[in-house]
Amino acid sequence: MALQPSPAPGIAKVIDALRPILGDRITTAAAVREQHASQLTWLLSQLPDAVAFAESTAEVAAIVKACAAENVPMIAFGTGTAFEGHVNAPAGGLSIDVSRMNRILAVNTEDMDCVVQPGVTRQTLNSYLRDTGLFFPVDPGADASLGGMTATRASGTNAVRYGTMKDNVVALTAVLPNGDVVRTARRARKSSAGYDLTRLMVGSEGTLGIITELVLKLSPVPEAVAGGICPFPTVRAACDAVIATIQSAIPVARIELLDEVTAAAVRSHSGLALMDSPLLLLEFHGSPQSVAEQSQRFGEIAETFGGGPFEWSDKAEQRAKLWQARHDAYWACLALRPGARPIPTDVCVPIARLADCVEQTKAEIAELGLIAPVVGHVGDGNFHVQPMVDMSNPDEIATVKRFIERMVERAIAMDGTCTGEHGVGQEKRRYLELEHGPETLALMRTIKRAIDPHNLMNPGKLVDNSL
Amino acid sequence: MALQPSPAPGIAKVIDALRPILGDRITTAAAVREQHASQLTWLLSQLPDAVAFAESTAEVAAIVKACAAENVPMIAFGTGTAFEGHVNAPAGGLSIDVSRMNRILAVNTEDMDCVVQPGVTRQTLNSYLRDTGLFFPVDPGADASLGGMTATRASGTNAVRYGTMKDNVVALTAVLPNGDVVRTARRARKSSAGYDLTRLMVGSEGTLGIITELVLKLSPVPEAVAGGICPFPTVRAACDAVIATIQSAIPVARIELLDEVTAAAVRSHSGLALMDSPLLLLEFHGSPQSVAEQSQRFGEIAETFGGGPFEWSDKAEQRAKLWQARHDAYWACLALRPGARPIPTDVCVPIARLADCVEQTKAEIAELGLIAPVVGHVGDGNFHVQPMVDMSNPDEIATVKRFIERMVERAIAMDGTCTGEHGVGQEKRRYLELEHGPETLALMRTIKRAIDPHNLMNPGKLVDNSL
Repeated sequence: MALQPSPAPGIAKVIDALRPILGDRITTAAAVREQHASQLTWLLSQLPDAVAFAESTAEVAAIVKACAAENVPMIAFGTGTAFEGHVNAPAGGLSIDVSRMNRILAVNTEDMDCVVQPGVTRQTLNSYLRDTGLFFPVDPGADASLGGMTATRASGTNAVRYGTMKDNVVALTAVLPNGDVVRTARRARKSSAGYDLTRLMVGSEGTLGIITELVLKLSPVPEAVAGGICPFPTVRAACDAVIATIQSAIPVARIELLDEVTAAAVRSHSGLALMDSPLLLLEFHGSPQSVAEQSQRFGEIAETFGGGPFEWSDKAEQRAKLWQARHDAYWACLALRPGARPIPTDVCVPIARLADCVEQTKAEIAELGLIAPVVGHVGDGNFHVQPMVDMSNPDEIATVKRFIERMVERAIAMDGTCTGEHGVGQEKRRYLELEHGPETLALMRTIKRAIDPHNLMNPGKLVDNSL
Repeated sequence: MALQPSPAPGIAKVIDALRPILGDRITTAAAVREQHASQLTWLLSQLPDAVAFAESTAEVAAIVKACAAENVPMIAFGTGTAFEGHVNAPAGGLSIDVSRMNRILAVNTEDMDCVVQPGVTRQTLNSYLRDTGLFFPVDPGADASLGGMTATRASGTNAVRYGTMKDNVVALTAVLPNGDVVRTARRARKSSAGYDLTRLMVGSEGTLGIITELVLKLSPVPEAVAGGICPFPTVRAACDAVIATIQSAIPVARIELLDEVTAAAVRSHSGLALMDSPLLLLEFHGSPQSVAEQSQRFGEIAETFGGGPFEWSDKAEQRAKLWQARHDAYWACLALRPGARPIPTDVCVPIARLADCVEQTKAEIAELGLIAPVVGHVGDGNFHVQPMVDMSNPDEIATVKRFIERMVERAIAMDGTCTGEHGVGQEKRRYLELEHGPETLALMRTIKRAIDPHNLMNPGKLVDNSL
């Protein structure tokens, strides 16, 4: 469903100004505008007035200046795979699509970094890197653009070992609301030379600047990889095994929880022989000896907590099947309630509270009679719930909204956050004051106002409640 | 040598206002004021007008509000071990000493984090953690306060494996220039809920807020540790071995370069049997099998580059001696030129340029006839030069100043930074525009102005050239 905001008053002038530069790369075609609004959840699509396809930093700067001159909102667009309404245009304006800025500009193998444009997707980058012995580890599931992953501080299954986007962006170039082009840092691995503008831009959701180039840290492809599945009697037992594993300094690369609901869905979808109990999916990176040793030690820990058997393998084919199944969990879960709409949401808590948080959330799911599979990047204390909602039933929608609200409040009460990796967008703005307190939220707004005084970059998102 | 700035006009009123709260914990005693100015290098000491010893966040907030009311500058003080003039008071004002805020408030072993006050030093924290199986890895050499390490984005020998302060601070509490107390984030390991205020404060050198509490990430004490020394024929050969080691995904915990000058000084000072050639000092963390495997593989790589023999050990005593010697390098080098003052400085470049940068810098040292040992955290591309300066010789001082200037320009030309870990303070302000460009520096100043509009927090540091 779409909601058409009133057009931004100056949009016609902006289009006229940009036409000589962009030609038919600026358009008001309805189908293109629809495709540039949020479409993935229960949020209403809010269409931009026009879409511009930029092909260079200079073009983005020209577009930004044209919009700024007419006070027209600007919304950066990569692949449109964010869940929380990040690309919606509640005040109309211009969607700046950077997906055609998709060149890999340099791979510096000795420095283990690369320079890319923001429209390059993570799978494209990793295919390109195939023969270098290096890879880019951040993996949020979707084949998202690296610019979008940066803007939303994405993470995913590898984060327990390799960190999130905040740890893997060395520097970036962005166009500020005033049209200035800034590069946040040099290509050195570390620096103490000034405010950390890189991290300020990572996770800023297009509200402070539009990212036009990235220097990304790469990691060496491990010599050997092993992985497998381990069933547990309860979610709590699985979480306790995770804590013990990490405390034992086993450098686990991935450690993912599937609750019994997700496990059943994934089994049907993938044909893998999985048990109908909570599962941990694991991966270990290292030398052949080391991954064998890590796998064996994890198996022993799992047993201590009543889990197992831990079936693991260092064969690429088996592992690929396993992780494909994990990545397909979103799709597999669609079959749990055909016709319903999945509404993915996530929270993150200190890991010692993870079992409590997941258990209480699952108890409420049962109590409310919802169908809502749970998966978790449990090494980070991050988990996702994906209620399957009958969108024709307003009562059910209201129930699920209250359920998500309570889940967020529970996570925050446990010193956790309203979102571990999906971002704030439109939907989670309402929780920021509860999470951060009024003074901290005021500081965020001070920064936003200082950099974007006319609130032109992605208005109505993150700290802006005016729309 | 000391330079007495004119007292800040409102200081008497601030002292009167704070006396009822602080009693004799606010003082104008000359000896205390001297001890609270920069004293470590060739920078003139610039004394604060008074020093306040705070014991709680509430007291810091009261102090900040009193200073703000009278437009009196505030300079946060931890242990005073920064090299670039960070604690100097060029406009007078109040030094806010948080060293008595030295309590460890919580250690959450399952979450692998702790909550500390900013005056706790890293050695105190690690002693306290001794029985927990956890440790705090960031190690800049000096037993600095954790608040100061956060404010200067410190790193050190372990950073190649465990990261810098930016990677090991989960959240922090700070008092802003307006007196607001903000907590930057929750205790969850990751979050996408808003601007990354934690990283904005890390490295802000007391110019945006005064840190009053920290949540720090802890790491499991490795089951086994091995380490040793490896000689190389040239600095370049050592650097090439470092690159190959890291590309091979050997998770080296420490990899430190000592040039032949430093090696000789350390040998005299420590009594260790070292060769008079460039050396790499290494440490590996993991299981007993894994550290043995890592050591052996490194030895093979070293040999490929003409290095070796690599003598390593997993005996704690031998390793302790080795790292003590590395940490004492600063002192050992004093003996190279008795009576001279060491002027430590650092830069950081992409690792592929490290050998070039070190070689060119050493060639210039030779050409100028300076005594200037070189050590490097080479896994990060970061190295330090410590010219030994005869402070009675103005020509020599001028020569060394030009030498440092050229070293910084060289690093920046190689896409590096004017400082990898020492920070900007007063001395490196002059390089920020060259490093970042005017637009990026303007963005930093926009942020500073927005948060500290009256320029009261650590004026004359980082992006402020007005003093």
